[in-house]
Amino acid sequence: MIVLDHPQNLVNIAGVVRAMKNMGLSRLRLVSPDEFDPWRIEGIAHRSEDVVNSVHIHDTLKEAVADCVYVLGTTARPRTAHRNYLRPRGSATMLISKAEVDLVAIVFGREDRGLTNNALDRCDAVVVIPTDQNYSSMNLAQACLLIAYEVFLASQGEGHSLPKGKRSVGAAAHDELEAMFVALENGLERIEFFKSRAADSVMRTFRTLLSRAEPDRQEAGLVKAVGFEIGHYLDRLKSERRTGGQGAE
Amino acid sequence: MIVLDHPQNLVNIAGVVRAMKNMGLSRLRLVSPDEFDPWRIEGIAHRSEDVVNSVHIHDTLKEAVADCVYVLGTTARPRTAHRNYLRPRGSATMLISKAEVDLVAIVFGREDRGLTNNALDRCDAVVVIPTDQNYSSMNLAQACLLIAYEVFLASQGEGHSLPKGKRSVGAAAHDELEAMFVALENGLERIEFFKSRAADSVMRTFRTLLSRAEPDRQEAGLVKAVGFEIGHYLDRLKSERRTGGQGAE
Repeated sequence: MIVLDHPQNLVNIAGVVRAMKNMGLSRLRLVSPDEFDPWRIEGIAHRSEDVVNSVHIHDTLKEAVADCVYVLGTTARPRTAHRNYLRPRGSATMLISKAEVDLVAIVFGREDRGLTNNALDRCDAVVVIPTDQNYSSMNLAQACLLIAYEVFLASQGEGHSLPKGKRSVGAAAHDELEAMFVALENGLERIEFFKSRAADSVMRTFRTLLSRAEPDRQEAGLVKAVGFEIGHYLDRLKSERRTGGQGAE
Repeated sequence: MIVLDHPQNLVNIAGVVRAMKNMGLSRLRLVSPDEFDPWRIEGIAHRSEDVVNSVHIHDTLKEAVADCVYVLGTTARPRTAHRNYLRPRGSATMLISKAEVDLVAIVFGREDRGLTNNALDRCDAVVVIPTDQNYSSMNLAQACLLIAYEVFLASQGEGHSLPKGKRSVGAAAHDELEAMFVALENGLERIEFFKSRAADSVMRTFRTLLSRAEPDRQEAGLVKAVGFEIGHYLDRLKSERRTGGQGAE
């Protein structure tokens, strides 16, 4: 599935639709597009009614990828933060194997500045499109085509599917992962973890680390429980102190 | 070198120029373009003066490729005639090796019907761009980007490195990982996490999850810090209670 985060230009949406059709992709979600007009898009990308009519529009990226087990961000511009970076080719095989069972998303940022660091934080990995280092600014539809092309090739390829480790439970969807990160952050806040550390930087490191591991439901639940239990324990401690009890310590 | 045979639309020429810049190509020849206006092209493909100013315009494809040792045609549409068909990936390596010594051309046909059979006759081989068989009509600039991308990758060799982010450090060694798990377990013990959960099962889940992510030093250090900080915070709380302080809660 393709997700365009705050696309500015309708012509580019049409270009993305055409690239998707070329490469056999059909699901498109838009996050707060500056303009969206199915009729005009179909006028540019002929015979694309199937894709255009099933476009979903969301208010936030978070909402748009909530049901996805794997979210791949895209960038052509080198970023400084440490993230799980992939090349289009490497990402494609992996995406295909995941997409066989669950919903995966490839997210593209707005035309003028790409995905924000905040949006990239929501991605399990980031595909870096290889470009000439002196001219890395790519047209949105062009960027989408390249990734879709690699995915298409991978889907056609021989023996493309990677052996899947047997897991008792399915991969955690993105809303479960978000709940996990929120609980973890709240727990760390309670023990004053961020007193001497920048919260956004700490949480980005946790996101990078845990996204790389692709937690299943049970694992995500366990990490979330750590965050909750810190809070619960401290609450118990506090109420015991109020009632004059000895406390657990 | 890219050759556009009878391009109809100036916006597409600009798209081709931008794709060329993205992929580090610089030589463009046009055969009888319907429209050509350097100023307008540069208005669409910013910072492309170098490519646009050195565009050569020819009357015929024959003339445009006269000095080339190898001419590669392109099509997304299956053709009936027997020709030397190649895939983009296969053609790219070969082009690169030839381009080291001589001039090679990649030729794209006009937007509405691609290269004529006559034009294809002038080509040493024909690259077939893989597309969904129900939607093979590609935008000119998109088709050009795909081929240029494969050529760019081939020219970079396999060793194109991914950005690692400025904080990237080496993988955590096994003793560091052990210290991380011990600290985490101690921290969880302190908040009575194992009161209702089997410690060995919880820790096995954490080991499986975190090992899969292959933490680097900084990430392992952060997880370890979570374990430590739980203990430190509770110790501070305890000592504050002993001295009659208000506590941090």
